[in-house]
Amino acid sequence: MAGMVVIYKQPADAEAFDRHYFETHIPLAKKIPGLRKYEVSRGPITVLAGPQDVYLVGTLHFDDIEGMKKGFASPEGKAAGADRRLYAPDESGVQIFIFDSMEV
Amino acid sequence: MAGMVVIYKQPADAEAFDRHYFETHIPLAKKIPGLRKYEVSRGPITVLAGPQDVYLVGTLHFDDIEGMKKGFASPEGKAAGADRRLYAPDESGVQIFIFDSMEV
Repeated sequence: MAGMVVIYKQPADAEAFDRHYFETHIPLAKKIPGLRKYEVSRGPITVLAGPQDVYLVGTLHFDDIEGMKKGFASPEGKAAGADRRLYAPDESGVQIFIFDSMEV
Repeated sequence: MAGMVVIYKQPADAEAFDRHYFETHIPLAKKIPGLRKYEVSRGPITVLAGPQDVYLVGTLHFDDIEGMKKGFASPEGKAAGADRRLYAPDESGVQIFIFDSMEV
């Protein structure tokens, strides 16, 4: 499997963030070709180490890195990426990681 | 499901980190009661936003937050936590998040 992990900092307006994220972003992102599973943190995030101002974590799963790249290069992937810049425009307010993973 | 996501920065000695992580830490952590799945990033991590010096991401899955808390409060959980401080002693070198999650 390969995954994209997106970690959002506490937004200035959490209600507006939630509305955009759940009503617009998730439906858009779920159209990305090759997406196998989309998980979102529920409730508060406990931070045991690192910056404390974390608000939400989204994880998108694909079969492999190649499939993920194809998915994000598609019109649906580009639309989801562009949409993210609307509700989390400041790159310092988000961490986005892409990696292949294995079960151990 | 509930998860713990651990994001390690690039260690000074990657070979020593890998040896400790794969040979000692994973076997210890896999003994934590209630652990359902343990995933580790494979190969380099692409950072699309946020600090670039990310080396490895580990994700531990449990049924729920309660089960995760019980697992980490057990002797096996405490041993795994103590072991993490051996190979990643600097709290600024790691981010650790705990959260409940849902599929959307």
